[in-house]
Amino acid sequence: MMNYQDIIKAKRDGKELSTEEIRLLVKGISDGSMADYQISAFAMAVYFKGMSERETSDLALAMAESGEKVDLSGVKGKTVDKHSTGGVGDKTTMVVIPLVAAAGVPVAKMSGRGLGHTGGTIDKFESIPGFKVEMSHHRFIEQVNRIKAAVVSQTGNLVPADKKLYAIRDVTATVESIPLIASSVMSKKLAAGASGIVLDVKVGKGAFMKNKEEAVQLAKLMVKIGRGAGREVRALITDMEQPLGNMVGNSLEVREAIDTLKGSGPKDLEEISLALASHMLVLGGKAEDFDKGLLKAKELLASGKGLKKFIEIVEAQGGKIDLAKENYGLKMADFCIEVKADKGGYISGIDAYEIGHAAMCLGAGRRKIDDIIDYAVGIELKRKVGNWVEKGDSLAVIHANSEEKAEEVKEKILKAYNITNNPPLKSPLIMAVIE
Amino acid sequence: MMNYQDIIKAKRDGKELSTEEIRLLVKGISDGSMADYQISAFAMAVYFKGMSERETSDLALAMAESGEKVDLSGVKGKTVDKHSTGGVGDKTTMVVIPLVAAAGVPVAKMSGRGLGHTGGTIDKFESIPGFKVEMSHHRFIEQVNRIKAAVVSQTGNLVPADKKLYAIRDVTATVESIPLIASSVMSKKLAAGASGIVLDVKVGKGAFMKNKEEAVQLAKLMVKIGRGAGREVRALITDMEQPLGNMVGNSLEVREAIDTLKGSGPKDLEEISLALASHMLVLGGKAEDFDKGLLKAKELLASGKGLKKFIEIVEAQGGKIDLAKENYGLKMADFCIEVKADKGGYISGIDAYEIGHAAMCLGAGRRKIDDIIDYAVGIELKRKVGNWVEKGDSLAVIHANSEEKAEEVKEKILKAYNITNNPPLKSPLIMAVIE
Repeated sequence: MMNYQDIIKAKRDGKELSTEEIRLLVKGISDGSMADYQISAFAMAVYFKGMSERETSDLALAMAESGEKVDLSGVKGKTVDKHSTGGVGDKTTMVVIPLVAAAGVPVAKMSGRGLGHTGGTIDKFESIPGFKVEMSHHRFIEQVNRIKAAVVSQTGNLVPADKKLYAIRDVTATVESIPLIASSVMSKKLAAGASGIVLDVKVGKGAFMKNKEEAVQLAKLMVKIGRGAGREVRALITDMEQPLGNMVGNSLEVREAIDTLKGSGPKDLEEISLALASHMLVLGGKAEDFDKGLLKAKELLASGKGLKKFIEIVEAQGGKIDLAKENYGLKMADFCIEVKADKGGYISGIDAYEIGHAAMCLGAGRRKIDDIIDYAVGIELKRKVGNWVEKGDSLAVIHANSEEKAEEVKEKILKAYNITNNPPLKSPLIMAVIE
Repeated sequence: MMNYQDIIKAKRDGKELSTEEIRLLVKGISDGSMADYQISAFAMAVYFKGMSERETSDLALAMAESGEKVDLSGVKGKTVDKHSTGGVGDKTTMVVIPLVAAAGVPVAKMSGRGLGHTGGTIDKFESIPGFKVEMSHHRFIEQVNRIKAAVVSQTGNLVPADKKLYAIRDVTATVESIPLIASSVMSKKLAAGASGIVLDVKVGKGAFMKNKEEAVQLAKLMVKIGRGAGREVRALITDMEQPLGNMVGNSLEVREAIDTLKGSGPKDLEEISLALASHMLVLGGKAEDFDKGLLKAKELLASGKGLKKFIEIVEAQGGKIDLAKENYGLKMADFCIEVKADKGGYISGIDAYEIGHAAMCLGAGRRKIDDIIDYAVGIELKRKVGNWVEKGDSLAVIHANSEEKAEEVKEKILKAYNITNNPPLKSPLIMAVIE
């Protein structure tokens, strides 16, 4: 009988762990019999020695089984979930859910609150006045059946092994491991119960994955894990060098999501949202292939059906959006301070990481798990990569509730902008699709 | 300001840590502000990425400074310490201390109890009836000045950072790292206060180091660390493929040490003991060079001065050895069971690890820190590598206090013996000297 130390040693020495060993490991993480210092040593050994596809898959499955799972058997139709590996200004979920729900694809969205530059999907929805993200499982299923979508905060004891492992990785420099990222994401998706999963793997300065090769590797691994567990999975590899869209911050991102559903959103956000929605329509059985899905998604957007569904979801969960009001009734920050270009030229880059960090400094995200988010604050980008500016032109607007904080991040935002004499090369927004 | 996570990440990425960073790390290990799971992740990163000589030296020094240190300023003359990386049947300390003390070199020996196949030096001395290993610092220094030697159990809060780090390494598969072994050993030696240190680095099946190259690397590193801290250091690389001497077990090893001091001990034990003593005489200023030291050590052995000093030390610490009595008055086990050769041939190998493990099974060593040692039990090797045996000849005698336990290890001991048709190649006992 192997003990945890033998498992760590085997991985350290580059050996492939058996399914039984991985199950023992996950059991030990869950029930506390594997000490935290053994978990971190194991994670570091994986960082250096990796895991095979089979090991990664076994880890994801064992973690998915480590706690409760969401029972979606009461939902009529093929449920489809969407997951983004996380980026700055990524509000696609708020655009995509109403689009596919409007086509009849049930989306039973359960999200956790996490750390990050801005809030997670749950925080963004909560920035809508009155929006409730807590409801009974019964009501959750009922709402999905009635209006085809519901967004709730994660409750219950889902993937406890992943939570423990992730918390330890987060403070031991062992986050950046492709098999550990893949098994973490997929354990959550498998436990969340949807039969179809569309993954958005972000690449660039504002994302976990810094280059396309790694992102493709991660995406392929996640698709294989999901498929091995009997789910239909697709992954897009999308650009996260600069923030997505123009808004970074919770209420601001809701505003931009609504603009996008009205057809007047930024083109990059619209493009990725439509692509994600198309794949979800295919997995949900509402389109034969991607091209037909795309046509349908565009029609749902143009006809206003997506926007109508968004309002329907918001109202079903107690929220209030008034399309006639300025800012749709969302709470905005007290101060708007401009960041002006200190020279003329082409915007050749906007460091998504720095913009995200600046937003967090304003209060839009959490540094520590118990930080309270200020929904109103954030950053509005007035210029994106490829634009031309003159010296003194507005690059961005800081939305802040304290002038001091706004001043603190001003320099940071200015530095995030790279201005050059020559126009930058245009790189594609959707870099690859893994099916 | 770096935090622990940044330090782990830097090491994970193969960067060299600054002296300040290593001090911060050791402070964090000592005061508990670096979590155990961060310590183990760091150790695993070092396992893969190593440490430079400077980093290793900084780690040893910072750990040596992490708690109390032994104050040997009251000792007259140049104190010399001896350390073995540990092997099976290694009772050289009991031979070497009286030899060099008889020449006037003060040896203020402080040892810890540890885990292992057989007890440590402290346990071996304690197997002498009445021998006390606890005394006040004042009496310790007084005894060293009066009779030139004292052996005490480690007291006080010596190298707490090393203790913590080692305890974690021990259960996270991170023991086998040369810089971590070197800094651990040297932190203890530096805190123990002697101005001269002779190291015995064991190589082979019964030792930490499995090959000569690694042992030389470890020895060079330890010599450099000691020298950098202003100590005189030498290291011998010695063979530990088969056990040293013929006795494995506490009282049995004391008996063999006395035999050796009488001039009738096994030749391998005598050779290594004389070499270690010679180097200690040089570092203690009692011999100009190794050859003169060796002559002196041989004379101390032949004249019986070493044996006389051994008895003097034992009596000073309340112990009783009666040279006239059978087994010198040491307690022997109830049962002696022979292990007989199952075929004839040359003994080409005796697996030191297996013999050590068998001794531990009999009760001669500790598996867990609170196990109680049975001083009387052990294994007496009747044949060593190179000897010829006929089928049925005695290979070894098991000294046990339970016939069941003796039967349990019989097969293990038989298997540890490798018997072949051709005589084995003779390999040198002392493989290298690092000065």
